[in-house]
Amino acid sequence: MKIKVGTVILSAGAGTRMNMDLPKPLAPFLGKRLIDFPLAESLKMMNQLGSNSFVGLVTGHGKEHVEKYVNENYKDVDLKYAFQKEQLGTAHALRCYFDQIKEAKSCEYTLVLCADTPLIESESLHKLYKELEDNDLDGVAATFHEENPTGYGRIIRSVDCGFHIVEEKDANEEQRKISEVNSGMYVLKTSFILEHLYSIDSENQAGEFYLTDLFKDDYKVKPLLFSEKSSFAGVNNLEQLEKSEITMRKRILITLREMGVRFVDSRHTYVDSQNIGKGTFIHPNVSIDHLSVIGENVTLEPGCIIINSKIENGVTVKAYSHLEEVVLHSNCSVGPYARLRPGTDIGSESKIGNFVEIKKSKLDRGVKVSHLSYVGDAEIGEETNIGCGFITCNYDGANKHKTIIGKNSFIGSDSQMVAPISVGDNCFVASGSTITQSMNDGSFAVSRTKQVTKEGLAKRFLKSK
Amino acid sequence: MKIKVGTVILSAGAGTRMNMDLPKPLAPFLGKRLIDFPLAESLKMMNQLGSNSFVGLVTGHGKEHVEKYVNENYKDVDLKYAFQKEQLGTAHALRCYFDQIKEAKSCEYTLVLCADTPLIESESLHKLYKELEDNDLDGVAATFHEENPTGYGRIIRSVDCGFHIVEEKDANEEQRKISEVNSGMYVLKTSFILEHLYSIDSENQAGEFYLTDLFKDDYKVKPLLFSEKSSFAGVNNLEQLEKSEITMRKRILITLREMGVRFVDSRHTYVDSQNIGKGTFIHPNVSIDHLSVIGENVTLEPGCIIINSKIENGVTVKAYSHLEEVVLHSNCSVGPYARLRPGTDIGSESKIGNFVEIKKSKLDRGVKVSHLSYVGDAEIGEETNIGCGFITCNYDGANKHKTIIGKNSFIGSDSQMVAPISVGDNCFVASGSTITQSMNDGSFAVSRTKQVTKEGLAKRFLKSK
Amino acid sequence: MKIKVGTVILSAGAGTRMNMDLPKPLAPFLGKRLIDFPLAESLKMMNQLGSNSFVGLVTGHGKEHVEKYVNENYKDVDLKYAFQKEQLGTAHALRCYFDQIKEAKSCEYTLVLCADTPLIESESLHKLYKELEDNDLDGVAATFHEENPTGYGRIIRSVDCGFHIVEEKDANEEQRKISEVNSGMYVLKTSFILEHLYSIDSENQAGEFYLTDLFKDDYKVKPLLFSEKSSFAGVNNLEQLEKSEITMRKRILITLREMGVRFVDSRHTYVDSQNIGKGTFIHPNVSIDHLSVIGENVTLEPGCIIINSKIENGVTVKAYSHLEEVVLHSNCSVGPYARLRPGTDIGSESKIGNFVEIKKSKLDRGVKVSHLSYVGDAEIGEETNIGCGFITCNYDGANKHKTIIGKNSFIGSDSQMVAPISVGDNCFVASGSTITQSMNDGSFAVSRTKQVTKEGLAKRFLKSK
Repeated sequence: MKIKVGTVILSAGAGTRMNMDLPKPLAPFLGKRLIDFPLAESLKMMNQLGSNSFVGLVTGHGKEHVEKYVNENYKDVDLKYAFQKEQLGTAHALRCYFDQIKEAKSCEYTLVLCADTPLIESESLHKLYKELEDNDLDGVAATFHEENPTGYGRIIRSVDCGFHIVEEKDANEEQRKISEVNSGMYVLKTSFILEHLYSIDSENQAGEFYLTDLFKDDYKVKPLLFSEKSSFAGVNNLEQLEKSEITMRKRILITLREMGVRFVDSRHTYVDSQNIGKGTFIHPNVSIDHLSVIGENVTLEPGCIIINSKIENGVTVKAYSHLEEVVLHSNCSVGPYARLRPGTDIGSESKIGNFVEIKKSKLDRGVKVSHLSYVGDAEIGEETNIGCGFITCNYDGANKHKTIIGKNSFIGSDSQMVAPISVGDNCFVASGSTITQSMNDGSFAVSRTKQVTKEGLAKRFLKSK
Repeated sequence: MKIKVGTVILSAGAGTRMNMDLPKPLAPFLGKRLIDFPLAESLKMMNQLGSNSFVGLVTGHGKEHVEKYVNENYKDVDLKYAFQKEQLGTAHALRCYFDQIKEAKSCEYTLVLCADTPLIESESLHKLYKELEDNDLDGVAATFHEENPTGYGRIIRSVDCGFHIVEEKDANEEQRKISEVNSGMYVLKTSFILEHLYSIDSENQAGEFYLTDLFKDDYKVKPLLFSEKSSFAGVNNLEQLEKSEITMRKRILITLREMGVRFVDSRHTYVDSQNIGKGTFIHPNVSIDHLSVIGENVTLEPGCIIINSKIENGVTVKAYSHLEEVVLHSNCSVGPYARLRPGTDIGSESKIGNFVEIKKSKLDRGVKVSHLSYVGDAEIGEETNIGCGFITCNYDGANKHKTIIGKNSFIGSDSQMVAPISVGDNCFVASGSTITQSMNDGSFAVSRTKQVTKEGLAKRFLKSK
Repeated sequence: MKIKVGTVILSAGAGTRMNMDLPKPLAPFLGKRLIDFPLAESLKMMNQLGSNSFVGLVTGHGKEHVEKYVNENYKDVDLKYAFQKEQLGTAHALRCYFDQIKEAKSCEYTLVLCADTPLIESESLHKLYKELEDNDLDGVAATFHEENPTGYGRIIRSVDCGFHIVEEKDANEEQRKISEVNSGMYVLKTSFILEHLYSIDSENQAGEFYLTDLFKDDYKVKPLLFSEKSSFAGVNNLEQLEKSEITMRKRILITLREMGVRFVDSRHTYVDSQNIGKGTFIHPNVSIDHLSVIGENVTLEPGCIIINSKIENGVTVKAYSHLEEVVLHSNCSVGPYARLRPGTDIGSESKIGNFVEIKKSKLDRGVKVSHLSYVGDAEIGEETNIGCGFITCNYDGANKHKTIIGKNSFIGSDSQMVAPISVGDNCFVASGSTITQSMNDGSFAVSRTKQVTKEGLAKRFLKSK
């Protein structure tokens, strides 16, 4: 069966102007990498078309790193790579693609994308494709209007059907004034590409082989003008990286707000996740990464940082809490200043207070750890109350050990549990105790020295400043 | 005596597009509710006029909740309610008002407001009223210019005096280009309303009874154009809610800055209170709710959250402190990361340091609680120094108990007070003590186990990793 | 030798509209004072010219404070002061300058600056100077276009060479429409000034002696138009102060980003330092003062506050940490919520965790202080592990004492060190111990009471709520 659409993503750039130690396609973007975005959108578009195709990447700089990353993250995708040793231009990149990937030639259409345009949307790709197919064209280029077009290839529309593109360096004064510019995104008939690709020369100011030379005034080609220019923004330096991330976040929050998420000030909020329920209320300076899932009617107070966590309905996360790989069950409350580390699972209705650190621990329903405590490698049964200044001494200098506390127990303030240790249900530990021996259900423990009070003696110790 | 101005606030809307479980007038806004704002401004305006009138609310969706809220919060205001069972249009709402509130007809003038325009200002209301009275008109509508007028009723001014309003749905192409639009805010002669209100029909695209049909080209009515269009912004969805809150906060901070409050970056500051003294310096991401009162020359470092609190002159609140229902007396200093909960009262010159939680406690002048402590249900006398890691064990699992410490005492680090307990003046508690018995003035207490040191034994416990 | 360029900075203003208790030149600006900025730029420009000149300040309001501040902070600069008792206008200020500073007259050129234009750049000063010299003019005024020119002196260019300036108050309707305005910054031949300065009168609406009267249509004077108007912004009130600070920060971050510093959202970042290395990644709401120096590949998570600190390469500062006068050596990690106070020095590869306060302490390589601890006046040897809830009891109510801990030791959780005290290398302290006696290398210590457990007794203490 002939493959309908082959996608090629030009991913060979070094991204020197990014000033990073990474090849450009791997530049971080919204918790992922630049390459993830055009790749995901092209997959979405092919899915829409029902086209079960491959994705071809033309790699160059940092080839191994790019391929390793993509291979690891897209195991279900049929990935094919072509290597462009020297960057001699986009037409040269496409020659590498067709020369090195044998399936490439057998696709009816070819979609050309760039790895550094993370804001591209599958809807635009689809529109581009439809334009080509509906009008039986040989090629369509996505274009947009740019007030300050410096640096872009300008679109020179012919009176009839075709058009051509003049690169900045080759443009005359008059042409430079044209504001319709080339996005670098095309859909073309594969046969049309193959007919012309190898005759493109590098007779231009830059001495590059331009793919844009495929477009000529007397060919069956068309520019398709898009009004949403931000979709095509390329990322070539850190300023553009930052701006594109901001644009992407704006998109996300508009969708969220329409679904009923409320923001105090969405301009100062860093939400990369789209899984946030109706009625959730997000205060300023909250960060939520793209892996996190937030339920309905959740309150996230100022400055909370939420990474790869699951928060159920009705939870309150108070100001400046920091959550990473955490599950919060319904209607529990944490913070302010709660630091929940990976492997923390907080039960419904539980309350975690200020200056509390928890890691790798499961707290059942209705547990309270209200202040200044460290709970590590522990299990705590429902309704147990942990006092202030509680510490699990889970580390002996080499290994971590578990602390298990039953339900309905009361652990007095300034107590330590020297793990491994277990405390049963309905136990009581007196304040200031260091617990080194396990306790059965219903037992009471204390390890406290009797208070000695000496009348009148304080003056010996009180210093006059 | 005839009442001069009757105010009716149209408050029947469900606010479906708000995506909230609340009727629209109760949508949260700057720590209060939407309805509070037009209501407060109309009261201010009537006060200005010396008109001791009532306020009529036409309620509908969530009628009981709206009325309950308003009744509870405006006990001194003469509130009257009309119920609009079905929302058949603004003229229909006004019929409910006149039919159900008997005093309505006896007012000379009627001011019509919407519950969802929180940015309205009494000055505008007053101007509208003056326009009517000074020119002996029958009705005046507040209008403004809107670049993108889609959705608004357009103002069609006649050559002579009158005008009429065409709703979006009924407007032709030409009319839709008109940028002067209807705010939905009117002052009218009551007799004029009553003469025409009941003959308004619903022969229009929406099939609604429009109050705007009161305005005709040959009537003694006028549009009054306002230049500050933001005052009339309606809140119909969460985006508009957020934008209006931001606009309102901008207004507040401009006033504050003119009075001598300095901001590092007012765009990233959330100040709802107008009670802030000259010379106060506010860092980014500080939140202050509308109930808080801040003195002069106060420094509020980044990220402080201040709720319903009173802060006297010269206080410093260091970064990321969280205060709720707290009083800070002059020149004290708290934070960074101080968490002061309801009922905390900190004396002049006192110092509360990092990772300290205090609730329901009164600390006198010059007290120091510098680090990692929990002070709950306590009273601490002046100049007493509380060491690090201090804990009031105020909760026995069922009840809270008090800790009372006198003045000029020194409480060593890692001490706990098992409440109820009292410690006198000039006392000294040694580090690491659990205090369970009260101490007289000048006494010394310790509950510490003798240190046992074993030479050469550590290697048995030190684990090689 | 004749001095080439004499600089005079007009610094007499009270700045009443600033609403501050400080004379205007001392208003805080980006961690320094307003006066620092024009002063530094004029020094840079003179350096460029190789002109070893003095800087003259005409002071008035708060004369002593201004002179004291400048004297203390510019010890290497030849500073001269003239006192302008009454503020009778800029020409009057210049008369004070020439009357009171004898060297003033012997300079070939005079550069006139204002203390309240902190955004001025030495490049502009140099350009202004070159214009004068290259064209052998008598005076040049820096001008710029201002859309809303209200309040500014308007530039009236003559057909030939000269020009004159009309102040707002003296301008007619037509002149007020002119958008080219006077910046208040001039370079002039000193001889030219002296020729005309004393004949300037105060026959104008304000009754002031205007220096702008030096410019006449038939003189050899020229306006030099600058396109970057923000450079000339004057600071007259708190709004302008805030705006100018924001502009200055924007300049800094653009430079940083070009050098390879990455920002999540530079609009919400407060970076006053220009010493930040390539590859460093700055999250929102990070503050860095102008004295701090940050290495390469440093990660600064959200909300970190960094004051006068040095951070070496590869360090991670986690969210909401607060650093003041601290040194962090390479690849160490601190926070979240670490509070490092003056005199803290953290070794390479060390880890400081959450809710940890450190002051005046030196931690060697690979030390761990992971949670809820206070380390004050301490030295800790390499690879030593400090458990949770550790406290140095460094204060006896009058004096601070030192805690010295060796390397490769393990200090169990909830331990206190009552200083002065020293613990050797390879020591082990059991959890919950109060250490009051020093320990030799390799020793083990405990001060813990035996745990007493009573079966079935807990129910006596557990309260049913």
